[in-house]
Amino acid sequence: AAHGARKMEDYGRFLALLASTLLVGFVSVILSLVWVLHYREGLSWDGSLGEFNWHPVLIITGFVFIQGIAIIVYRLPWTWKCSKLLMKFIHAGLNTIAMILAIVSMVAVFEFHNAKNIPNMYSLHSWIGLTAVIFYSLQLFLGFAVFLLPFAPVHLRAALMPIHVYSGLTIFATVIAAALMGITEKLIFALKSPAYSASPPEATLVNCLGLLLVIFGSLILWMASRPHWKRPPAENAKILRPIGATPDGTEVESTLTKHSNADKSDLRSNTEAARKQNIKFDEAGQRSTM
Amino acid sequence: AAHGARKMEDYGRFLALLASTLLVGFVSVILSLVWVLHYREGLSWDGSLGEFNWHPVLIITGFVFIQGIAIIVYRLPWTWKCSKLLMKFIHAGLNTIAMILAIVSMVAVFEFHNAKNIPNMYSLHSWIGLTAVIFYSLQLFLGFAVFLLPFAPVHLRAALMPIHVYSGLTIFATVIAAALMGITEKLIFALKSPAYSASPPEATLVNCLGLLLVIFGSLILWMASRPHWKRPPAENAKILRPIGATPDGTEVESTLTKHSNADKSDLRSNTEAARKQNIKFDEAGQRSTM
Repeated sequence: AAHGARKMEDYGRFLALLASTLLVGFVSVILSLVWVLHYREGLSWDGSLGEFNWHPVLIITGFVFIQGIAIIVYRLPWTWKCSKLLMKFIHAGLNTIAMILAIVSMVAVFEFHNAKNIPNMYSLHSWIGLTAVIFYSLQLFLGFAVFLLPFAPVHLRAALMPIHVYSGLTIFATVIAAALMGITEKLIFALKSPAYSASPPEATLVNCLGLLLVIFGSLILWMASRPHWKRPPAENAKILRPIGATPDGTEVESTLTKHSNADKSDLRSNTEAARKQNIKFDEAGQRSTM
Repeated sequence: AAHGARKMEDYGRFLALLASTLLVGFVSVILSLVWVLHYREGLSWDGSLGEFNWHPVLIITGFVFIQGIAIIVYRLPWTWKCSKLLMKFIHAGLNTIAMILAIVSMVAVFEFHNAKNIPNMYSLHSWIGLTAVIFYSLQLFLGFAVFLLPFAPVHLRAALMPIHVYSGLTIFATVIAAALMGITEKLIFALKSPAYSASPPEATLVNCLGLLLVIFGSLILWMASRPHWKRPPAENAKILRPIGATPDGTEVESTLTKHSNADKSDLRSNTEAARKQNIKFDEAGQRSTM
């Protein structure tokens, strides 16, 4: 009973955190719309500022909010009864939507700049933003090729998983940093009388939007890095116990668990040598704990 | 022999990464000096732009570079023979230096603003920067009280360690994001003819500085989140094997290892129930793997 209560308490804590994260993300999207519709020139697709305005809206909706959800989608407890393959499709699908929205939002800026003869790609915001989009596309392509298509050998999946997790979280943080730089640029350029430094209501609203993006990012990183909120290992992994048994499938999850268990057993010998020897297994076994 | 070779290969990879990180951090500090000494008004402490210029230099030197080193100081293999207490003092000492430099750098901006009648704290950069300094001070104070002073019970240390690690890395990432926003602000305000959008040499140099800060942060996060580069558990932890043994010291390291081992043993029963039951231990056992 005590164990069940602890389990429910932990489940409740996860749900409360998830609800807060969704709320913060949702309010961020709303604030970006209030910004461009109420304080700015609205939305259009004609080379005017209305076209530029798609940039913050689509970045916050797609590249921040949807990417954030894509990162934690494996953590939702009610999806644990779904197949891992289905969850991979949802993870890849959400990231694909985020990438498309990010690219459309960049096209909006380039078209606006070209229509107004403003140079492209001169700012640190543009350099880091474009770098993030390129790495994100690369990450999506490699993730698709290695983890979704059935061709990659299990040891390759195991070796690349920690890198995939690290890259995903680092790119996500970089995207938020780029968004904050973009907000800074836009407020300085757009607010003239009164200026940004006079703190008009628009400046305060958009500063709050920036703070919400940092909070959203921090909540996603917390949920993604708690080991006890990970999707449980696949069923077949529970049967495969012997240390050093050869992989019997392409399901990377089972391999990771096996390595992880192997590591745990070996650790019982508990010598410095054994610890070092397990370095490789340890790395492979680290699922989403970055 | 194969095991020894693997160990040396991993050691070599760590050293190469460390050298790259130090180089990127060092070049960042140099670039910040080139920026203010060659392109800007130099350094002074008289309410002029020369006083403002201490802000980027001290933030990049202290709040980025030294904080980054403080984060990975436990990972340096040649320190593993030093006592954990000594390493905690070095970790806390480097973070204290970083905090002092961050505060001095803020004083420089406030004095400059006040001398020139420029409002304080209106920008998103200032909001997020100040938030980061406040959380950093809180983290330092709590870290000192819980992990360095000998009063905190072991279970409290074990419970707070994953939060300490998560907060540390999240604050570090937020500091870099704030630095990138500050660079964006400064380049827009300072470059007038030619403007930032005309990409004069100063703009290109400082954009490169911003990129280096992102690379530095990414390298630190990679080194800090590889489980196999962690400082090995304390010697006494290796002797304490029985599951459920009561803690015998204030050294949190040993407790964490014990919990971690207990977790690993329990996992051998390998049922869903056992997995859930280990949630708490799992969290406590997660040392610096965020």
